[in-house]
Amino acid sequence: MPIQAVVFDAYGTLFDVAGAARAAAAEPGGERLAAIWPRLAEDWRRKQLEYTWLRAITRIHADFAKVTADGLDWAMEAAGLVDPALRARLLALYDALPAYSEVPAVLAALKGHGLATAILSNGAPAMLGAAVRSAGIGAHLDAVLSVEEVGVFKPDARVYSLATARFGLRPEQVLFVSSNGWDVAGASGYGFATVWVNRAGLPQDRLSHGPAHVMPDLSAIPDLARAL
Amino acid sequence: MPIQAVVFDAYGTLFDVAGAARAAAAEPGGERLAAIWPRLAEDWRRKQLEYTWLRAITRIHADFAKVTADGLDWAMEAAGLVDPALRARLLALYDALPAYSEVPAVLAALKGHGLATAILSNGAPAMLGAAVRSAGIGAHLDAVLSVEEVGVFKPDARVYSLATARFGLRPEQVLFVSSNGWDVAGASGYGFATVWVNRAGLPQDRLSHGPAHVMPDLSAIPDLARAL
Repeated sequence: MPIQAVVFDAYGTLFDVAGAARAAAAEPGGERLAAIWPRLAEDWRRKQLEYTWLRAITRIHADFAKVTADGLDWAMEAAGLVDPALRARLLALYDALPAYSEVPAVLAALKGHGLATAILSNGAPAMLGAAVRSAGIGAHLDAVLSVEEVGVFKPDARVYSLATARFGLRPEQVLFVSSNGWDVAGASGYGFATVWVNRAGLPQDRLSHGPAHVMPDLSAIPDLARAL
Repeated sequence: MPIQAVVFDAYGTLFDVAGAARAAAAEPGGERLAAIWPRLAEDWRRKQLEYTWLRAITRIHADFAKVTADGLDWAMEAAGLVDPALRARLLALYDALPAYSEVPAVLAALKGHGLATAILSNGAPAMLGAAVRSAGIGAHLDAVLSVEEVGVFKPDARVYSLATARFGLRPEQVLFVSSNGWDVAGASGYGFATVWVNRAGLPQDRLSHGPAHVMPDLSAIPDLARAL
């Protein structure tokens, strides 16, 4: 069996990044977010990612906690929200994002098949640790790998090399799973077998490399990993 | 006077990038774009920029004509548009984007003040040449500089160095003007004096460097360049 490890992106793939704004809108006092939380979440995510890419190009790194707060600050200003307590609450909720419902069973099945499992994420170690604990999935993960080890964000190839180095594998022995098309493109270019989890039914990104497999959620990953 | 040259970003700064989709919607047969052209233009621009950044990080360059077509393909698929003739028409219109109304007078005033003027753009040389000719502003420009000379997109510092090299200036002798906050951040980090032209009233990007000056359009650039 050529696939020896299944490596997951975290934000958007295992964890629902819209969950923080959605949860804040549902809390007491969150009524004013009722109509705007989807746009707030979208702007937050968009700016967060833009800032990772721009920092990678200019080689002026800051960790994902900083970039996540920077993206939120832009999104809150765009929404006309000036509220330090809400800002703090949203960032706290980002450390406890909900995992997609199928995640625990998928990870358990992969371990049951004898495969190594890992997260490989832009997230800073403390953020990833909090999210993994909150979702209760730590027991199913052999490694939680952060870009902080190399000090540059995805899709720089040094990030993907963290996974091959950690498990002593060649790229083609790793199945990399992400809901972010640009992350899949980078991982495919690095040589991983890849799955693009296209939950939202988006068009495929037009980059130099595409996904080897496309799935609507994570459920079929264990069967795929065994079949490859 | 420390400022010796005023260097402009092209797309979004001198030329209205929404102009192609807007014009296509106004042409015979464009009725089906009436309600969707703003979203089409926004998605097209967003994906075009994302692809420049991702290619810069992964060092898999393609020129801006390719990336512009790739972004349009994503945006048309997202809009449910399958129409090769429309695709070709939109790309042709992108080579003849409208310049903002104040552009010719601003460039003429800068030349009247004895300043050097240039475009420094992600655009491929043929695209930039077509846009400059279409807008009739070539006589006011001393140089049209394309990232193709260095084979990487903004905000890589090698791009900004094209302007200092072309005019034999130090970065602080160049006033760089862009409506793209991320471009301004990169240029400020390089050492240029910068103006962010914030036509849309957007929040300022949270990056490592910000603009030295913020203006709603280009009109006051000649006075600023003389005053610095």
